[in-house]
Amino acid sequence: MTRRIAICAPSTPFTRDDAARVSALAEAEFPQLELDFHEQCFASEGHFAGPDGLRLGAFLECANDPTFDAVWFARGGYGANRIAMDALARLAPEAYDKQYLGYSDGGNLLAALYRAGIGRQVHAPMPSDIRRTGGEAAVRRTLGWLAGSREGLEPSLTDGRPAAAFNLMTLAMLCGTPLMPDLSDHVVMVEEVAEYHYAVDRLLFHVTHCLAPVGIAGLRLGRVSDVPENDRPFGSAPEAMAQHWCARTGIAFLGSAEIGHVIDNRIVPFGLA
Amino acid sequence: MTRRIAICAPSTPFTRDDAARVSALAEAEFPQLELDFHEQCFASEGHFAGPDGLRLGAFLECANDPTFDAVWFARGGYGANRIAMDALARLAPEAYDKQYLGYSDGGNLLAALYRAGIGRQVHAPMPSDIRRTGGEAAVRRTLGWLAGSREGLEPSLTDGRPAAAFNLMTLAMLCGTPLMPDLSDHVVMVEEVAEYHYAVDRLLFHVTHCLAPVGIAGLRLGRVSDVPENDRPFGSAPEAMAQHWCARTGIAFLGSAEIGHVIDNRIVPFGLA
Repeated sequence: MTRRIAICAPSTPFTRDDAARVSALAEAEFPQLELDFHEQCFASEGHFAGPDGLRLGAFLECANDPTFDAVWFARGGYGANRIAMDALARLAPEAYDKQYLGYSDGGNLLAALYRAGIGRQVHAPMPSDIRRTGGEAAVRRTLGWLAGSREGLEPSLTDGRPAAAFNLMTLAMLCGTPLMPDLSDHVVMVEEVAEYHYAVDRLLFHVTHCLAPVGIAGLRLGRVSDVPENDRPFGSAPEAMAQHWCARTGIAFLGSAEIGHVIDNRIVPFGLA
Repeated sequence: MTRRIAICAPSTPFTRDDAARVSALAEAEFPQLELDFHEQCFASEGHFAGPDGLRLGAFLECANDPTFDAVWFARGGYGANRIAMDALARLAPEAYDKQYLGYSDGGNLLAALYRAGIGRQVHAPMPSDIRRTGGEAAVRRTLGWLAGSREGLEPSLTDGRPAAAFNLMTLAMLCGTPLMPDLSDHVVMVEEVAEYHYAVDRLLFHVTHCLAPVGIAGLRLGRVSDVPENDRPFGSAPEAMAQHWCARTGIAFLGSAEIGHVIDNRIVPFGLA
């Protein structure tokens, strides 16, 4: 049976050329999937893929359409937090029987949906990953998951504990807001891109202090990539920072996670895999 | 009577040349003040002005010394959050009868001290402001305040409400941590430097959602300076962002504040001025 995947852009715009490449890859390798890029993916206003109302409307059309099996976020960037609260209030029963897939800024919507118990939320590579060198492998991983394969799952998920995966900055900004889900007893995986090492340490300070009282099962650190060069080296690596703040806050540091803004970014369904 | 001011560096290192310029300015114009730069100001390890233990020790020496009337942070950057909790536990009675002055990353210590009710916390220009063009005016403002002048106060403070001032990123990272003071009924002023507009919007999303349940008196927006150029314009200015998020969260937006990483940065004593 064909599975229909709606694609919209809650954050920043995508391009028709890249959409065509993703569609071609899906057609060639996953004939059981039908990708439907919403026209809103290509809208642009300032930073965003169209104004808040347009992005919200497109997400709702995708989520509330019973003929779609999944909603896939085209790209991150910034902006999903601006529509997530309004979206929750307007989701129809059809939105519950769906998967929602993406990462990075898309984590705002995944978080809000997970908190509300609407559908299944999946940290997964996005259409925009087609732009990376070798990015077809990342896109293929999500398409494979949508086609029923479990090969792309983050390897540590076999431990039987509920999990969630976030961009570190996205999670830091979610903490304390009405979009933040209950992550108690969860293994929380975080990854970061294009932030200075001192900013990563600062984010880990914030996130560990906010998560410690919640009682998470532990923290795993994904890739910290494309770190800009500062005027001087920070003096410790991201893993040491994570260990430091986990120790300070009494969170179990569980090691690494295969997630990140890289082509090896693996799939992490929220909750139990 | 001479007022003795201890200067230490809880975050990043200062230089002897700049310290000499600040000392010369103080000697020439404020003979009633005696500045004492702690040797730790010039220490350096990786990103920081020495390791956590050294920065903590220097701060405690300054704060616990009864011969000092005030502790002034030499410079921001990043790092005060790494020592603030440990500092609180080791402050002696002598630390209570003092002013603590600084801003930017120094806001971490101001917040922790304000929460603990230890001394008087003052958002104020730092010795490092001597490096700005015309920075003597900023440094002179803090020296004037320490000498007893109220001329440098942020103008809106005449409204009789308690206030606090923070760098927006610093405040965002404090929210939800044990360093965060109770800001209920306070006018909260925020400023930012060297962050993309989308990041400022994201920080305002976070901070307004975290502060709204607290019941603050309102938000004032200081200068958002040195905004890096993005690949495309964001589409709205920082004041519009602040208005947007205040409206969304039910916080009163009270207009501008004369604070920021600029030479016009004014003085904001925490609580009632």
